[in-house]
Amino acid sequence: MIAAIKRVCIHYQKLLHLRTVSKMASGSEAVLAPLRQAVKEQGAVVRKLKEGGGPKSEVTAAVAQLKACKKALENKEKSLSPPTKSLFDKAGLEDLMKRRFFVAPSFSIYGGVAGLYDYGPLGCTMKNNLLSLWKAHFVEEEDMLQVECSTLTPEAVLKASGHAERFSDLMVKDLITGEFFRADHLLEEHLEKLSSKAAPDKIKEYQEVIRKVDGYNKEQLGAKLTEYSVTAPLTNNPISAPVELNLMFGTSIGPSGQLASFLRPETAQGIFVNFKRLLEFNYGRLPFAAAQIGKAFRNEISPRSGILRVREFEMAEIEHFVNPEKRNKFPKFDKVADLRLTLYSATDQIEGNSPKALRLGDAVEQGLVANETLGYYMGRIHEFLLRAGINVEHLRFRQHMSTEMAHYAKDCWDAECKTSYGWVECVGCADRSCYDLEKHAAATKVDLCAKEQLPEPRLVEVVEALPDKGAIGKKFRKDAKALLEWLAGQEREAMQKLESQLSMGAATVTVGGNEFTLEPAMIKFKTYQKEVHTVDVVPSVIEPSFGVGRILYCVLEHNLNVREGDSQRVWLSLPPAIAPIACSVLPLSGNTQFQPYIDTIVKELKVARVSIKVDDSSGSIGRRYARTDEVGVAYGVTVDFDTLTSSSVTLRERNSMRQVRVKMGDLCSVVRGLVDGDMTWEQVEGKYPLFTGQESTN
Amino acid sequence: MIAAIKRVCIHYQKLLHLRTVSKMASGSEAVLAPLRQAVKEQGAVVRKLKEGGGPKSEVTAAVAQLKACKKALENKEKSLSPPTKSLFDKAGLEDLMKRRFFVAPSFSIYGGVAGLYDYGPLGCTMKNNLLSLWKAHFVEEEDMLQVECSTLTPEAVLKASGHAERFSDLMVKDLITGEFFRADHLLEEHLEKLSSKAAPDKIKEYQEVIRKVDGYNKEQLGAKLTEYSVTAPLTNNPISAPVELNLMFGTSIGPSGQLASFLRPETAQGIFVNFKRLLEFNYGRLPFAAAQIGKAFRNEISPRSGILRVREFEMAEIEHFVNPEKRNKFPKFDKVADLRLTLYSATDQIEGNSPKALRLGDAVEQGLVANETLGYYMGRIHEFLLRAGINVEHLRFRQHMSTEMAHYAKDCWDAECKTSYGWVECVGCADRSCYDLEKHAAATKVDLCAKEQLPEPRLVEVVEALPDKGAIGKKFRKDAKALLEWLAGQEREAMQKLESQLSMGAATVTVGGNEFTLEPAMIKFKTYQKEVHTVDVVPSVIEPSFGVGRILYCVLEHNLNVREGDSQRVWLSLPPAIAPIACSVLPLSGNTQFQPYIDTIVKELKVARVSIKVDDSSGSIGRRYARTDEVGVAYGVTVDFDTLTSSSVTLRERNSMRQVRVKMGDLCSVVRGLVDGDMTWEQVEGKYPLFTGQESTN
Repeated sequence: MIAAIKRVCIHYQKLLHLRTVSKMASGSEAVLAPLRQAVKEQGAVVRKLKEGGGPKSEVTAAVAQLKACKKALENKEKSLSPPTKSLFDKAGLEDLMKRRFFVAPSFSIYGGVAGLYDYGPLGCTMKNNLLSLWKAHFVEEEDMLQVECSTLTPEAVLKASGHAERFSDLMVKDLITGEFFRADHLLEEHLEKLSSKAAPDKIKEYQEVIRKVDGYNKEQLGAKLTEYSVTAPLTNNPISAPVELNLMFGTSIGPSGQLASFLRPETAQGIFVNFKRLLEFNYGRLPFAAAQIGKAFRNEISPRSGILRVREFEMAEIEHFVNPEKRNKFPKFDKVADLRLTLYSATDQIEGNSPKALRLGDAVEQGLVANETLGYYMGRIHEFLLRAGINVEHLRFRQHMSTEMAHYAKDCWDAECKTSYGWVECVGCADRSCYDLEKHAAATKVDLCAKEQLPEPRLVEVVEALPDKGAIGKKFRKDAKALLEWLAGQEREAMQKLESQLSMGAATVTVGGNEFTLEPAMIKFKTYQKEVHTVDVVPSVIEPSFGVGRILYCVLEHNLNVREGDSQRVWLSLPPAIAPIACSVLPLSGNTQFQPYIDTIVKELKVARVSIKVDDSSGSIGRRYARTDEVGVAYGVTVDFDTLTSSSVTLRERNSMRQVRVKMGDLCSVVRGLVDGDMTWEQVEGKYPLFTGQESTN
Repeated sequence: MIAAIKRVCIHYQKLLHLRTVSKMASGSEAVLAPLRQAVKEQGAVVRKLKEGGGPKSEVTAAVAQLKACKKALENKEKSLSPPTKSLFDKAGLEDLMKRRFFVAPSFSIYGGVAGLYDYGPLGCTMKNNLLSLWKAHFVEEEDMLQVECSTLTPEAVLKASGHAERFSDLMVKDLITGEFFRADHLLEEHLEKLSSKAAPDKIKEYQEVIRKVDGYNKEQLGAKLTEYSVTAPLTNNPISAPVELNLMFGTSIGPSGQLASFLRPETAQGIFVNFKRLLEFNYGRLPFAAAQIGKAFRNEISPRSGILRVREFEMAEIEHFVNPEKRNKFPKFDKVADLRLTLYSATDQIEGNSPKALRLGDAVEQGLVANETLGYYMGRIHEFLLRAGINVEHLRFRQHMSTEMAHYAKDCWDAECKTSYGWVECVGCADRSCYDLEKHAAATKVDLCAKEQLPEPRLVEVVEALPDKGAIGKKFRKDAKALLEWLAGQEREAMQKLESQLSMGAATVTVGGNEFTLEPAMIKFKTYQKEVHTVDVVPSVIEPSFGVGRILYCVLEHNLNVREGDSQRVWLSLPPAIAPIACSVLPLSGNTQFQPYIDTIVKELKVARVSIKVDDSSGSIGRRYARTDEVGVAYGVTVDFDTLTSSSVTLRERNSMRQVRVKMGDLCSVVRGLVDGDMTWEQVEGKYPLFTGQESTN
């Protein structure tokens, strides 16, 4: 995930600083041609430099320029694409989220804390529903092993994983106030400001630097900050040279801070350190997948973009452990092979092409997606996001380019959703090779291998020590046992070495801190062939990693609508299983005769575990429907005067606003069926008489 | 919760240091009489001292002695009660939990961290089931507002709540190694050691100090440590005087630690700081309840007792906000009034009586439980714990004594479960009065009131300022507006004061940091009666607070059984809705003809969202049943040779180990019905033919 996270930051930066670039062009489809050409040409430059083994600094600069060209193209494409129905109503959605308490800033009465948010009743229930769907779709459907590990993580674990060293941003400090700023942001903002009143050649120079900023290392960034005399914003105070600031929250465990620790920046490590237990739980067999839902924490320097970049957030991660030699085949791959995904390959990004819709089976066959296991998860992620309410038109899988991918990763694709903030990474799906387990095994000296059954037994050479127990016991007394155990546990290489040493005279070995000087007569060696049936395998890890809050936000943006002819009447087209409330129950008026019917309906729907809310407030029925539509309540049941005589109620569907008349005895199973997707609204309309009239009373 | 937590610590201490006391008695029921008498007499001493206004130190000492007497009685009662079927098989349970990966120490491969545990697949699923039941039983059934708030909490919030100051333990430091120890534990252990080889009068003195240790303040504890020359354990190094060590994990938010923060020690504060939003969500009406499930963190000095005292744990908390004048009546109280709860009142604790089974309605009527709202929640907690699998024989509600209850609390009862560790507090249920909201309102100057409709309008006196806007505008220019707004917003008292000041000449007021000197001619005052329809109310809070891990542990202990005649065959009698796996699916053997049937059953049960696990390992069917019984799998479906011809399978119930033969078409609805509790096993046996034979094959 480290690489992925860094990339997101870069992604946002780009969206910001390339606004200027994209302003330079204007107009129709033809406008795209020169931009595409620029990307293509720069792509060629990069390839040439790399192939020719050009100096690293030049490659870095060329790649930065390529990225900038790509982004300019993408922004232009975005500006030219037809505006989508309310997709970009950011202000409207944020107002709705706050007003109806889906999500709101934490500790507001204390002035608030940037990057911390609380989920209110609607947001919390919607998040629970999203996670419930996730569990059904992944954990239950795929028989994953769900775990829940500690948030507090000792430093040693995060040193091994690489987070303690590399999970950081470059920062500068206001030398007077002590405030910190992102070094790259500061340089960009400074140059943007200079650009606004500079001569054309200077503008060109500044934009050149802005384009290259992602590629600068600490020293280069420091040099540029000095060259352009950048000072702290607002105060204009002098600033320090850039320093790396780790993004993890530190704390310590125990009364006197004995154990330096961090809040986990991702949930994955908890799974890796439990690998042996999980393998045993799975009867020692590969492959298997473990899953975890839980909070992770990142001390973002300047949180922004609402709930998209926060300091405390929920993740849902899967670690699929597989024999690296077997990841190319996945038994259930057929089930997703025919899905058409929008794939934005690294090559297409470099060459300035648009993303392409491709059959997943073909993508794997062509080698675009590294293997069937990775491909299978991409397909399942695609299906999950659609079930959650993501609009397929605004979903794509973007492949990491080699420059942004961690060196150990084999392939990595991000599921990105288009929103008013641009394309947002919601799910990362990476083939991480054996990196994580190898790192933890090296740090702990604990063997993190699986034993794989060989298709047929293999012959291996064994060198066995045959100690003279009497002689050894006599010389080493109480320490003899440890020595004998050690001799029995050694690998072939160690025994061969000892045999050769003893062939030349006495030899000394160290066991448990004690030195033993062995005489040649004490040990004989036997060399023979042995049949082995298993081989040790360090599994590869395929890691789909979900940002739950981000998906929730994108689902909300993709489902925000306005009723035709009434721009004030906002409604959410959330899937019934995701909607914070599945069904509202409304008495037509405050007439007390309705109460027993309301009570019965509420009781029955609760038993059926349909989430409901009674709205017995005084507004007209139309106004109350509007209020429930606004938060995505999927169905509405109204008790009216006809109920008193016919024991039937109206059932309303949110999207069509159409209503049917249903007998109370049928109501529960109809609503449950609709929410579970066992029944469609069309089927309901086919079975029950349409009802008209109430809605117009507002 | 603060008081409750401190109390738990005391509770455990007592269990420890009173072992010696309880050893002094022995034998039959008659043995209890003198212990009861001792408690009664000491209770009388305490009452007399309190009534007579005796010196505080004497009262404290007498209360400490009383507690010791009570505990001795309780321990004796415990030792005399008939041993319960496997209730105290701590070692067996811990072995099972580790071996089958319910719960295991975190970061073991890195040497582990005390007080941190990971939930494996079975523990995690069982916890999910427990929380799912909790949500259905409380949040859904009672229409609570579920929220999810930040874990990171700024210091200011926890200063206002009292945690920053009071959430601490007294510790001493090894002056050489720097290691910390609980001061009271150290003194106790030291005196226990001395007791073992001391003269009778010395033993009496030591035991006296041990009994009083809970009542000592920092200075008294320090004096005793010096008096008895206590040193650090193992090293015998000198120790420091006791210091208060806060139990919260500190961290800081932002790049340079600008914002001192803590990991929340409980989830409740997140609800309090969102009170206004939640009130608005509830249309401004009282009462309402908010609920939160989430992690809390406490930097325990010496975690122990397995998962009962840990540093990171899940809580489920409810805050019920109610007009303090209306908490005596609760509309649904009738639904729980007839429940018989085992109540251990403060009086019974003081007088040395045993807990009593009492009708909840009577307990409230007698004033034993403070009000119907508190009583209702106690009833609902009782029902929940039984549904979760707690054995009613080992459940009691213990009332806090005035000495252990926070000064602001009105009444507090802990649901305690009996385990091999003694009585464990699993749920606290407190009437916290208006404490929390008043504290946050005072700290933030934000009004945290609800407006309650008066039954009939009330007349109040209003003093209204009638400013001469011309004169004010002329004198104060641009500042005039702020002054006028201020005048319009003042309460009666402030206006009366200003009127009286101005009647004597010019008066000065400060608004927004500016001073305004007003002349008598500038303002006239009008006094009149006004009808008001609402009154401001700071709600009382009733707080049921659940320790999820503790409940899970107690449920496991209460459901651990051994098959008759085979002490090796351990099984868990977990309720089907709580069991980590509801149903196992087993092919009789590795015969490939069984596979399509297994696939069909798995698919259908998954659609019905019955949690399942296929066990196609090679053990005999009996051995495989034993393995599923051991982790509490409620039902087992076996595909055998008859399935191939009759399309029927066997369905086995875990507790009775009886089996029936069910058609595959009926299987899903039968299992779903059993898990949901819509159907009993007896009904299933009535409907389907019994099947015998397989089990004996192991």
